[in-house]
Amino acid sequence: MNWTLARRAARLNPSTIREILKITEQPGIISLAGGLPSPDSFPVAAMQEACAKVLLEQPSEALQYAASEGFGPLREWVAAELGSQGLRAEASQVLITTGSQQGLDLVGKVLIDPGSTVAVESPTYLGALQAFAPYEAQFESVAGDDDGPLPEALPAVAGARMLYLLPNYQNPSGRCLSAARRQALAAQTAALSLPVLEDNPYGDLWFDTPPPPPLAATLGVGAPGEPAGAVYLGSFSKVLAPGLRLGYLVAPPALYPKLLQAKQAADLHTPGFNQRVVFEVIKNGFLQQHVPTIRSRYRAQRDSMQAALLKHFVGLGCRWQVPAGGMFFWLQLPAVLDATALLPDAVKAGVAYVPGAAFFAGSTAHAPVGQANTLRLSFVTVAPALIEQGVQALAQVLRRALDSSASDPAARAKTA
Amino acid sequence: MNWTLARRAARLNPSTIREILKITEQPGIISLAGGLPSPDSFPVAAMQEACAKVLLEQPSEALQYAASEGFGPLREWVAAELGSQGLRAEASQVLITTGSQQGLDLVGKVLIDPGSTVAVESPTYLGALQAFAPYEAQFESVAGDDDGPLPEALPAVAGARMLYLLPNYQNPSGRCLSAARRQALAAQTAALSLPVLEDNPYGDLWFDTPPPPPLAATLGVGAPGEPAGAVYLGSFSKVLAPGLRLGYLVAPPALYPKLLQAKQAADLHTPGFNQRVVFEVIKNGFLQQHVPTIRSRYRAQRDSMQAALLKHFVGLGCRWQVPAGGMFFWLQLPAVLDATALLPDAVKAGVAYVPGAAFFAGSTAHAPVGQANTLRLSFVTVAPALIEQGVQALAQVLRRALDSSASDPAARAKTA
Repeated sequence: MNWTLARRAARLNPSTIREILKITEQPGIISLAGGLPSPDSFPVAAMQEACAKVLLEQPSEALQYAASEGFGPLREWVAAELGSQGLRAEASQVLITTGSQQGLDLVGKVLIDPGSTVAVESPTYLGALQAFAPYEAQFESVAGDDDGPLPEALPAVAGARMLYLLPNYQNPSGRCLSAARRQALAAQTAALSLPVLEDNPYGDLWFDTPPPPPLAATLGVGAPGEPAGAVYLGSFSKVLAPGLRLGYLVAPPALYPKLLQAKQAADLHTPGFNQRVVFEVIKNGFLQQHVPTIRSRYRAQRDSMQAALLKHFVGLGCRWQVPAGGMFFWLQLPAVLDATALLPDAVKAGVAYVPGAAFFAGSTAHAPVGQANTLRLSFVTVAPALIEQGVQALAQVLRRALDSSASDPAARAKTA
Repeated sequence: MNWTLARRAARLNPSTIREILKITEQPGIISLAGGLPSPDSFPVAAMQEACAKVLLEQPSEALQYAASEGFGPLREWVAAELGSQGLRAEASQVLITTGSQQGLDLVGKVLIDPGSTVAVESPTYLGALQAFAPYEAQFESVAGDDDGPLPEALPAVAGARMLYLLPNYQNPSGRCLSAARRQALAAQTAALSLPVLEDNPYGDLWFDTPPPPPLAATLGVGAPGEPAGAVYLGSFSKVLAPGLRLGYLVAPPALYPKLLQAKQAADLHTPGFNQRVVFEVIKNGFLQQHVPTIRSRYRAQRDSMQAALLKHFVGLGCRWQVPAGGMFFWLQLPAVLDATALLPDAVKAGVAYVPGAAFFAGSTAHAPVGQANTLRLSFVTVAPALIEQGVQALAQVLRRALDSSASDPAARAKTA
């Protein structure tokens, strides 16, 4: 049978992370790989109550076909919530999506032509690269420092269809852009007329102080009387539960109809049952009580991982910053080490992580030096005792690798 | 701000049906337009029980990120169910989708290049046209008769990427392909090496006898030792509830990985909570009791509509076939009538339908004669008493239009 693949299918490839997760599902492995929220943070009782209530009071509406835009009261909730963070948007600009991953796919479908440039951070979120790649995007990494992308690097990507940014506790780097850097980036993108796609799944997971306002608050999403410099993506996956697949995008009125039509073509609408259940859970301020409990849990686990790293990584020559929120530590190993190559040893030693190479646009399995020596550790999935055990096992693997590279002339030359 | 749309965005357009549905949501309108399953058919008690059980027994798994392929036991259920219909497939070939609309989108993403031909029935399902259009497909209608597409018309579309077929109680025509026509189409597509995408949302909604086995049972979906001539799409929307957005595709092993990667890029996975709840509802044979109740309900409503048409459409010169299943009557009006142009009059008279023009690939608002004089009536959403009232109102609108066209020389010329 003559099945001919579309050209774009060549840009669809297995997810490195999902392949790794399969390996690490073996029993006995301490997985610091997956970005899975702690199941202990799932609001099960509230969900039970909300499911029962929705099925009792509005079963016909919740189980019927529904508007592609999403459930009206939930869209209003999102607009009000964003307003409280300084981002002015009308409910009519909110499109409920099947997870914020779908927001990435819809934006890609509407904005990316084959060969279009998409400017990304370095590293950036792998799921965004996977969403944009099948639309045959060309990725350009924006040069950055420890505080994120550099405004002065933006003119080099001024012709891009958009700049994709994850300013809060980025996956994978854990980095949160400072208020000053946000302002400088917003000013520069506006000056260059460079559209921004701002993705914010982790913003609520701050540990000490909330992050600065989103760039979209400055750039505008096209609310009446405001500029239309950004599309904004949000998610309920990290503050409620990812298994509900509930996210949203907020778009300028000029773009919204095309995104809506792409949504209709993609899955008609996000499950109305899930939208009504989540609205039932959150409508009376539940998140104001619930999210702080996630924050303290994750803060404690972050502290456990930082303590374990300080204790076991002494003398290994690794660099990291302590994340102020989110779910991840990002480690820079000595240049002689290749995190992808070391993963099988680590799994043998009982610990798993995600090699950093996958998060660099254009990287391959044989990533260039400067990218191969990075890895991501999640501190939210396993309990503190296991975090220390996993970090200790990882330290031993790295130490052995460093020792053997010290006796290898080729590796010594690479370090020099 | 320099938002540049992708070229494919020009192929994203408002859904005619959804626009019509908005108009017809006015109170007092009897809507025979929407293809909404009757809410009375939703298994609310079973859903309540299943939600409670899943959240009690497996909350961590149901609310967590999950495999992109779908929930294992549900995939096995689908494979076994299809096996009982003569379609041999392994569970590993089943991909759970966010409604079968997503199956259309994923197949489009993986198989359609700009300019690729997709062969379709005439008329065909509007949602499929909307899913394929943004991948810049060219549609070719396959000539047909009252029993569906003609095998001898297939050589003309032999170069198509696929033939899209909806053999059971098609939306919009209500037509069910005979066993003989299925065999002839399967033989011809196999001879031409023309891949088939078989879409079957309505197959369980038969009223007297089950439909013949799917074409995919003959063409194969690539199970061990079988040919790989078809991709098959199914849905839980019509037998349980559409608001859950739960469907599936079954694909040959050679295509499956690309469809899976497209799925990951699109929304990571279909809500695991919904998958587990539906599996809980159906795992012990619930559908064997439940679906017959939907069949009798819809059969009675079909009978009401047929009785109303026989009573009120006397002398109007309309043609229709009595659907043996599904949700729709398809009416051919006298050639002088334009169903799109008449819709405002109908809404004024208190009844709504969907003009047929939208279901013809390449049609515009000003569809050519032979398409403009068609319309779709749903018999599943409103109660029998309202069905008769709606049909009566529609008959009056058509009668008035015929009377006024009889006094219009231009229209008389068109009829001649």
